[in-house]
Amino acid sequence: MGKIVYSPIGIIRSPFKTVEGAPIQPVGARGARGAIELRREFLAGLKDLDGFSHIILIYHFNLSEGYALEVKPFLDDRLRGVFATRAPKRPNPIGISVVKLIGIEGIFLHIEDVDIVDGTPLLDIKPYVPQFDSIETELIGWLSGRVQAVEQFKADERFK
Amino acid sequence: MGKIVYSPIGIIRSPFKTVEGAPIQPVGARGARGAIELRREFLAGLKDLDGFSHIILIYHFNLSEGYALEVKPFLDDRLRGVFATRAPKRPNPIGISVVKLIGIEGIFLHIEDVDIVDGTPLLDIKPYVPQFDSIETELIGWLSGRVQAVEQFKADERFK
Repeated sequence: MGKIVYSPIGIIRSPFKTVEGAPIQPVGARGARGAIELRREFLAGLKDLDGFSHIILIYHFNLSEGYALEVKPFLDDRLRGVFATRAPKRPNPIGISVVKLIGIEGIFLHIEDVDIVDGTPLLDIKPYVPQFDSIETELIGWLSGRVQAVEQFKADERFK
Repeated sequence: MGKIVYSPIGIIRSPFKTVEGAPIQPVGARGARGAIELRREFLAGLKDLDGFSHIILIYHFNLSEGYALEVKPFLDDRLRGVFATRAPKRPNPIGISVVKLIGIEGIFLHIEDVDIVDGTPLLDIKPYVPQFDSIETELIGWLSGRVQAVEQFKADERFK
């Protein structure tokens, strides 16, 4: 299987200048404002996006160096398979976050509930559609009983 | 901004051998069985994943050739900004789908509600966690009143 090459479509701006202290999920980043600075060549792709209250950001964890197949996630102190976690050090360090879209001004998208480190390269934007993306399920494995803590939890140096 | 290079972690197997006739979202693929064939070197990363009923697949739309910034999505006949759609021809042709995890046997993950074309390169697997991923929102822009149709809709040659 060959390599897959992407180019960032823009940069994510946020109040979090380092991994340490950043929220570990948007639910832990309520109210945190940020912005997307889109590359000007992609401006026409934003048409109609302002009708959506939430958008999915797909981005590259550019601060992750290497990966491990078993990791101690922020919400646990046992080793878990990396694909059973949302840890940033992954074979392909791709992150996804659902954020609130506040408004669009030219190439700038103002966003809220941003759990992403400032300067992160953005790969894609998709509209969040509850009918596609919101699934009723309660089987959340090792995260059972732990997800509430995510609202208080901040990242440490674990995944640099 | 430099190039970002990923390598597939595996291949997605499904009943859909071509883009034409494939469902356009997992909600239109209820019951469709498929599998992931993981590269053996990543096997240890699957630990603990079997506790989750749903997983997020991030994959490369390898059949997409080029992109347009405005597209006519399957659910509409007006041009929409590509970032306001889930169309596969995107500047970085990355797809995401939430599928049901039926079981894991070695490097094979048996999955259901698969809307992905057979042979698609897989980039990442994440656990689906409703507390992170399920957002209550009703502002879905141009898709208002159209999302129900997705369950019947099949893809055509539009996004080859």
